[in-house]
Amino acid sequence: MVNFEYYAPTKMVFGKGTQLQAGQLAKQAGATKVLVHFGSASAKRSGLLDQVLASLDAVGLPHVELGGVVPNPRLSKVREGIELCKNEGVDFLLAVGGGSVIDSCKAIGYGLNYEGDVWDLYRRKATPTACTPIGCVLTIAAAGSEMSNSSVITNEEGWLKRSVNNDLARPRFAIMNPELTYTLPPYQTASGCVDILSHTLERYFSGPETVEPTDSMAEGLLRTVIAMAPRALQAPTDYEARAAIMWAGSLSHNNLTGCGRGDGGRAGDFACHQLEHELSGMFDVAHGAGLAAVWGAWSRYVMDAAPARFARFARNVMGVSGEGSDSEIALAGIEAFETFLRSIQMPVTLGQLGVPTDDATLERLAWMCSYEGTRTIGTFKVLDLEDIKAIYHMAK
Amino acid sequence: MVNFEYYAPTKMVFGKGTQLQAGQLAKQAGATKVLVHFGSASAKRSGLLDQVLASLDAVGLPHVELGGVVPNPRLSKVREGIELCKNEGVDFLLAVGGGSVIDSCKAIGYGLNYEGDVWDLYRRKATPTACTPIGCVLTIAAAGSEMSNSSVITNEEGWLKRSVNNDLARPRFAIMNPELTYTLPPYQTASGCVDILSHTLERYFSGPETVEPTDSMAEGLLRTVIAMAPRALQAPTDYEARAAIMWAGSLSHNNLTGCGRGDGGRAGDFACHQLEHELSGMFDVAHGAGLAAVWGAWSRYVMDAAPARFARFARNVMGVSGEGSDSEIALAGIEAFETFLRSIQMPVTLGQLGVPTDDATLERLAWMCSYEGTRTIGTFKVLDLEDIKAIYHMAK
Repeated sequence: MVNFEYYAPTKMVFGKGTQLQAGQLAKQAGATKVLVHFGSASAKRSGLLDQVLASLDAVGLPHVELGGVVPNPRLSKVREGIELCKNEGVDFLLAVGGGSVIDSCKAIGYGLNYEGDVWDLYRRKATPTACTPIGCVLTIAAAGSEMSNSSVITNEEGWLKRSVNNDLARPRFAIMNPELTYTLPPYQTASGCVDILSHTLERYFSGPETVEPTDSMAEGLLRTVIAMAPRALQAPTDYEARAAIMWAGSLSHNNLTGCGRGDGGRAGDFACHQLEHELSGMFDVAHGAGLAAVWGAWSRYVMDAAPARFARFARNVMGVSGEGSDSEIALAGIEAFETFLRSIQMPVTLGQLGVPTDDATLERLAWMCSYEGTRTIGTFKVLDLEDIKAIYHMAK
Repeated sequence: MVNFEYYAPTKMVFGKGTQLQAGQLAKQAGATKVLVHFGSASAKRSGLLDQVLASLDAVGLPHVELGGVVPNPRLSKVREGIELCKNEGVDFLLAVGGGSVIDSCKAIGYGLNYEGDVWDLYRRKATPTACTPIGCVLTIAAAGSEMSNSSVITNEEGWLKRSVNNDLARPRFAIMNPELTYTLPPYQTASGCVDILSHTLERYFSGPETVEPTDSMAEGLLRTVIAMAPRALQAPTDYEARAAIMWAGSLSHNNLTGCGRGDGGRAGDFACHQLEHELSGMFDVAHGAGLAAVWGAWSRYVMDAAPARFARFARNVMGVSGEGSDSEIALAGIEAFETFLRSIQMPVTLGQLGVPTDDATLERLAWMCSYEGTRTIGTFKVLDLEDIKAIYHMAK
């Protein structure tokens, strides 16, 4: 077990009706004026926004609203939020939505405490020294931003997607009502589940080593989401399934499943995330679906680095039994996971994802993913330009 | 899944050499003068205390020391600490030790922020409104106090043992170096492992319901400690075993394994803890050993309330396989756990624990445990005076 730090200070308030506590929790966190940040009109239509605003009113907390956050949240909206908060004297940011809205809040929070342009922090010209406190009412189980230190923002000038990972931005509280996810479309539900699984898988496959209790807990989270995803698709108002997925989503990306793994503080492989990053950068695909489309190819390409690790996954997560070499069991596990992905209508190839698979496109994806041949990705097996190219081709 | 809150804000700094970061972490937490609180002379002898003091000196943090905390930490020492801290202007409390030292720090922290006598808070005459910030360097894997909100103090006048559970006292940071537990005597190591297991078992058996991912993660923690305890006893410097036990200790009592379980916010049964409480109150026995001595009797007495739950434990934790009714599998699981306890030289009866088992003693234990017949304990099966008596007799 390598040395690690684990820091997940967010107060999780989980269950039915918890959105009604938003005002009270914001007040306890010291808010005197609140920005309510949200995405599309659905938060308005569903009545959720009204409930949240009423809960702020009930504790006498003044507020301003800013909607319009889009998936892959944008710098222009962040700048708009910073301006608004400065003018209005906002000192608390309340995200009502999914990972994009929370990430946008984190960026606004940094920007309010930085003299220069907030993009400086994302392009690593400067490091954040403070962040306005954040709370959230989660409506999508996927990104884990409600408990994580991560914020990813896209700059429309050049469509650069950059992240800041800093503990200053970890939300003070997260309100988690699984019922709020009942109305998610099936594709978004499934894609969210793959994102959640991927956050644990990236850490589980950071290297060949066994680390307990981290591995056993990771396997429990994986088995849970694999069992519950089909239930949530079958019956969108299955509370137990929605609740299990939502809670697993937070625990899969707060680094609980990375503790003691990897070295040099890198407790995750994250090659699949980087392979996917180029797909959603170049084409308009859902993040989770993109992850599903590359995972099988990545797994088959890297498994020889430590077949026993994949065999453990096969047995303990996918329920593969029987005799066979580690490699045979490993392959059976990869196939079983792909069968699961198909069962929830997720793609297991780039073709099924609906992106072009001609040689020129794949070359370009590999070129960009490798930062024009200047970087490697992954830790389970370190992948250079040629490896990346091979994986994209295998994923066709 | 019932509604729950999960709040575990402690920054965990885990691994070799981490005690050298004590000064830096205290400084980051805002300390300007530190009380270093510890127990026996072993912290001095081992050189740990010198390392911690040197790390405070290195960042220019003045400090005072107060040793002498005993197991079942005492009110008189807490009062001594409050007095010292007031006179010295201490604003940060650093526990160097196990759960007793941390609990004593929590009490001092409350007392420094309360006008009256600190015992008022423990006898529920008043509620804490603030607590001086606390950090810790953990030397015993057992109680989980490094991440919990709990503090248990014994008032020597009448030997009353009372607790305060309040989030104000959750440590700001916990330094966790598994190497510091290498020198623990075998009995204390084993007893600590049982305490850790019990913190998860109490929650796992809070009721019949299945809650995922909580159950699967709990099972992973249990399997880990059951596998690692014999390794740590066999080879006290087995780092992986010590590390797994230490990390499992924190995760078993920060309520991760209670999330979504129980109702009315009671996410644990805790009958075994209450049965044991009387044993260690009346006789000088180690807490974990006392838990081991009553668990089998408690399990057999209550299992009929939900045999399927015990059968799941048998299969998923103890590796019981094969056919049989839930009750048969359940019993096999209980027996397997007792076999494990024996294998680490823990008692599975009161006789083996070394306490008197005459009728008068058992009657008196039951009388006290039931608060003179006025309360019930447990949630898996609610136990009154007669039930408690029956369990003590079964545990003979």
